[in-house]
Amino acid sequence: MTRDYRPAYQRVLDDLQERIAAGDLKPGDMVPSEGELAEEHGISRGSVRGAIRVLRDTGIVEVIRPKGTFIRTPPTRTVREPSSRYQWEKDRALLSREERLSTGASEKESGLDTADLEFSAKYEKTISDEYISGRLGVEEGTQVLKRTYSTTSIKSGSVIGRSNSYIPLDIVDGNPDLLDDRNEPWPGGTQHQLSTVGVEVDSISDRILARVPTVDERESMKIPEGTPLFVIEKTSIDIAGRIVEFSSILLPADRAELKYSIPLKRWKKGQHAGN
Amino acid sequence: MTRDYRPAYQRVLDDLQERIAAGDLKPGDMVPSEGELAEEHGISRGSVRGAIRVLRDTGIVEVIRPKGTFIRTPPTRTVREPSSRYQWEKDRALLSREERLSTGASEKESGLDTADLEFSAKYEKTISDEYISGRLGVEEGTQVLKRTYSTTSIKSGSVIGRSNSYIPLDIVDGNPDLLDDRNEPWPGGTQHQLSTVGVEVDSISDRILARVPTVDERESMKIPEGTPLFVIEKTSIDIAGRIVEFSSILLPADRAELKYSIPLKRWKKGQHAGN
Repeated sequence: MTRDYRPAYQRVLDDLQERIAAGDLKPGDMVPSEGELAEEHGISRGSVRGAIRVLRDTGIVEVIRPKGTFIRTPPTRTVREPSSRYQWEKDRALLSREERLSTGASEKESGLDTADLEFSAKYEKTISDEYISGRLGVEEGTQVLKRTYSTTSIKSGSVIGRSNSYIPLDIVDGNPDLLDDRNEPWPGGTQHQLSTVGVEVDSISDRILARVPTVDERESMKIPEGTPLFVIEKTSIDIAGRIVEFSSILLPADRAELKYSIPLKRWKKGQHAGN
Repeated sequence: MTRDYRPAYQRVLDDLQERIAAGDLKPGDMVPSEGELAEEHGISRGSVRGAIRVLRDTGIVEVIRPKGTFIRTPPTRTVREPSSRYQWEKDRALLSREERLSTGASEKESGLDTADLEFSAKYEKTISDEYISGRLGVEEGTQVLKRTYSTTSIKSGSVIGRSNSYIPLDIVDGNPDLLDDRNEPWPGGTQHQLSTVGVEVDSISDRILARVPTVDERESMKIPEGTPLFVIEKTSIDIAGRIVEFSSILLPADRAELKYSIPLKRWKKGQHAGN
């Protein structure tokens, strides 16, 4: 028999992870108590606590006081697929109002219908700070329309995502309807809104970062410990090469995944590699 | 004067965050000690510790014992741009060996030259488990070539990324060179390797997740507290519609960002929205 040189907390941790992997501990199940685990492994309660902390910090378990520690049920992930979504939104801008009214991008991707989603939008006119000016490619202090969106799943009560969108005011102020958040949710979304002032979006680029949420974000979006946040910086460029919108989109990573598909150009006949 | 109802730790936290935002505390600077902050705010050292913990958990500060607490210097981020990278790799597969030898995708994106990067590759033949079979669209137990890559920046000593790549063995076993990791780094990378056995990649899709690293990952990749991990599941499909490679790529999110650009189809003349 080989001696076990692992530290005590590591032995409990490995044991619990094996039980979870094997399905002996399933989402919703209660983890044995500190006392039980300490006795079972012949180690101190402090060591057990260390192992539980690792599982909590990595989002595997949830500590619900005074009930106990439970295996977390991962929420359903909403797949965001920009490589098809953005073209779908562009095509949709050409449809009639009735067709545009029938569905939106969030409903399409979450698989939820409109009745399951709580949507909120708030508009305000503001002036661009250094960060936003840089993103929009405008002078600092430029007038912009700031739009704040939030989408919540009514059933689960969890925030699916939040975003701040910025548009240089001179682009949209030709159509007063675009300045009034009572017109939200706007059938057809931003690409349709922009089309009403003659703007055709030509390409959209997403910059993706991930970080831990701040305490405020964690509380307001009900993000559990051990869950990072995706930050998507989305930039829309029109056919004249102008940046017409910049959004910063926050998606808690336990309920979101991103998917991008990159088509490649075919080699011509006679072209081939391998040399 | 309005009374300040914020909990004690929140007051120190807000104060420190303001000092960082204003640039009074810059990367590398030492944060005042627990005792100093407690005295300054007239609160307990325990409350100060709570605030420091939040800053540490969100990757803002680093606690270096016994020296003190320091504002973290964020590492340089490597930008991964799959929407241009994958096409660049495909084009490169057509180049001569000399041209392919001159640079690789990691050097291209990190801006580091080959001498600054430590690259390791390990190959092994294995059989696919449930997860890999699902990703490759093959029967469980299929023979696959598993390749493990790791790229480290020599200057900073930090791991830039790690990946596990899987290819059904029957695709590559026609060329024995593809089964030998002593041929790595292979000039031209996977797309060129596949081209030597007649495979042309037609599209690549990336599924992006973010999670906190495990304890092992944190230690082996030197990932500080409060830094999530990007997990990119990359699937390559050839012109016959077959999945020819699946990779799981791990990138610590403090040293990586992802960028995708989505071109949209132009509206035809006479087509316009706004109705």
